[in-house]
Amino acid sequence: MPDWNDYASELGRRGRAAALLLASTRDATKSDAIARFADGLRRGRATILESNASDLAAAEAGGLERPLIERLRLNDARIDAMAEGVEQIARQTDPVGQTIESTVRPSGMRVERRRVPIGVVLFFYESRPNVTADAAALCLKSGNAVILRGGKEAIHSNTAIATIAAAAIADANLPSDAVQLVNTTDRALVPVLLRQNQQIDLVIPRGGKSLIEAVVRDSNIPVLKHFDGNCHLYIDEHVAGIEQRVIDVCVNSKTSYPGGAVCNAVEHLLFHRRAADVLLARTCAALSARGVEIRADSAARALFPQALPATEADWSTEYLAFTLGIKVVDSIDEAIAHINTYGSRHTDGILSTDIAACQRFVSRVDSASVMVNASTRLADGAAYGLGAEIGISTDKLHARGPMGASDLTTYKWVVTGDGHLR
Amino acid sequence: MPDWNDYASELGRRGRAAALLLASTRDATKSDAIARFADGLRRGRATILESNASDLAAAEAGGLERPLIERLRLNDARIDAMAEGVEQIARQTDPVGQTIESTVRPSGMRVERRRVPIGVVLFFYESRPNVTADAAALCLKSGNAVILRGGKEAIHSNTAIATIAAAAIADANLPSDAVQLVNTTDRALVPVLLRQNQQIDLVIPRGGKSLIEAVVRDSNIPVLKHFDGNCHLYIDEHVAGIEQRVIDVCVNSKTSYPGGAVCNAVEHLLFHRRAADVLLARTCAALSARGVEIRADSAARALFPQALPATEADWSTEYLAFTLGIKVVDSIDEAIAHINTYGSRHTDGILSTDIAACQRFVSRVDSASVMVNASTRLADGAAYGLGAEIGISTDKLHARGPMGASDLTTYKWVVTGDGHLR
Repeated sequence: MPDWNDYASELGRRGRAAALLLASTRDATKSDAIARFADGLRRGRATILESNASDLAAAEAGGLERPLIERLRLNDARIDAMAEGVEQIARQTDPVGQTIESTVRPSGMRVERRRVPIGVVLFFYESRPNVTADAAALCLKSGNAVILRGGKEAIHSNTAIATIAAAAIADANLPSDAVQLVNTTDRALVPVLLRQNQQIDLVIPRGGKSLIEAVVRDSNIPVLKHFDGNCHLYIDEHVAGIEQRVIDVCVNSKTSYPGGAVCNAVEHLLFHRRAADVLLARTCAALSARGVEIRADSAARALFPQALPATEADWSTEYLAFTLGIKVVDSIDEAIAHINTYGSRHTDGILSTDIAACQRFVSRVDSASVMVNASTRLADGAAYGLGAEIGISTDKLHARGPMGASDLTTYKWVVTGDGHLR
Repeated sequence: MPDWNDYASELGRRGRAAALLLASTRDATKSDAIARFADGLRRGRATILESNASDLAAAEAGGLERPLIERLRLNDARIDAMAEGVEQIARQTDPVGQTIESTVRPSGMRVERRRVPIGVVLFFYESRPNVTADAAALCLKSGNAVILRGGKEAIHSNTAIATIAAAAIADANLPSDAVQLVNTTDRALVPVLLRQNQQIDLVIPRGGKSLIEAVVRDSNIPVLKHFDGNCHLYIDEHVAGIEQRVIDVCVNSKTSYPGGAVCNAVEHLLFHRRAADVLLARTCAALSARGVEIRADSAARALFPQALPATEADWSTEYLAFTLGIKVVDSIDEAIAHINTYGSRHTDGILSTDIAACQRFVSRVDSASVMVNASTRLADGAAYGLGAEIGISTDKLHARGPMGASDLTTYKWVVTGDGHLR
């Protein structure tokens, strides 16, 4: 078994050196590197597709599930989309250097919070090669060095893409260590990397729950978690006149992503008793027609007898499939309490015409995104106008919900005096 | 040995319930509770002093060091100061509910980041009873429930103050569990509390380095660290005309806190060779005259032979005393590299008349506070205009440097549509 200590500390040390330079690099230079990277992706198309073919062959041979193989697959259109995504990041406003807040104190001393890069980011992600390109470009834009550790099924594709990134960065006269890809799929490296808190400032784990739990357990570096979502929609008693909109939002929230296997798909509907009487059966019928299996409590089954009975375990389940739990509640407060108890604080919404109900729901539901009369599927960096996102944080500290380039920054206090003393 | 699991989960559960209510409590009610708390401190003066006398007697009997006993001591003036500090927090602007950022998307959907409390905060702190009052008031103002665990020497004083806080909160019709004081000094409770990540959202440990390291090791809750500071001042080559100012800032940064035992006192001076020739000896003489022991490299000793020789270990030492390390550097970049290598990223400053040098220093030194021509001792919540501070974060995520009430908040995304779909 190899000793990963040297490799892990080397990754950290190189990342730190690159980060210190990147922190004071002007945007024109960073954007130039990112634009060259996009060019390189287009010019390196043949190499990328060849590497991807190796990954696909191994995945087929290893019996990887069909949807995961599709996620892994690259083709001309996907490489074009990847390059365009990277170009969009190059054109974004640089968050670094912005003054977030400033005051001049009575003594004349100026106090500013100024946005700066975090430093070195360690990023774990699923086997989706386009994420390698997005993450490299987002970290570069925000002045961070990144250490990438993608899913093992994508190792050849990721290596091809990261090599192109490093070359583009060097061509722009920046340190190519700004983007480092972990060159092994050996899991023994992971806990060793997670102890490099002198050199790595932030870990972002994306992917399966067990990976994220292991990262939280093993890391002495701060972690921004990206757990999946047990999302709810509450259908309030005030829905007269918006019945069709309610049905459309419910159906869209559940079914707009193929197979429902996405963190911002709705998993549970809570109907106020009065809304249930008029809308529950119609909503269930619309969902059933799209192939959604419904599990319901007894009050809901009385209105839609085709539903299967829900058990207590259903309420805390994130199905990630075309399955949906339905419950009837007696009040908005019961809905809020249910969401705060069983939910995962990712994305929850209300459908209502009543402003007081919407305000109550918004202020009392403790979730990263709270949707009012909108699909839960809109909880997403692109929909929020952030551009590409590095993930959706379910943590409360630092960044919550969809994270864009500016969420990869922190601030420093810059204090300017003319000999000020205490 | 008692089993602390029940007590720890009870503290968490009660905190969570209080936090859910506080999150939607209007500022008038929170300010009322805080003002009643200040009143209660004044009216409960006799009880507080009596409890403090018990702590002091035990501390004397246990042989606690004199400065720590002084820190523990309350008297009429200190109780008045405590009550006034609490009243100031009551009058601060409520950070909760502020819209940090908002956009209306092309589709007409409104997307806002809205400031909300973090939830339940677990706060460890040194044996300084006034911190109990400040922390209770700051957390209440920012809508958070807090679990307080102060130093064991202050247990009676803290209990008296926390009891007054809980009564004031109940009088304002808020849940008195908003402020809970841990009722034991048994250290075995600590690791159990640190595993309550379902109910506790944030841990802030303040105090000795070993406590903070133990918290980071044992916690599965996010931690905002408050390590102490190895602070530097760099005296640039461009100091013609500001010589006296340079000396005053150096002396103030080192000596304005009694004994120098404070995290924002300067620990090391780095002189550019050209500045050293004109200023090093005068600066050292001024420091020596105040009783500061100087440890210097050979170039500095050539100019101030009374200095003791510094060893490599000095550069990473935080003396927390009237001891200071001095080094001569050949360039601003050598100073920046030294600070980024040996410093603790707390507070570092430059003294210079040259704008390019100041800009270079500000953008390249990776510290929470970077001071330009100002004393390091000004790195402080009050000096920055934050009002009372809960501590000075040496972390990069979430909050960096001095933390006030608004740093005890996070945000949620509030998305308002009229049936928007994806």
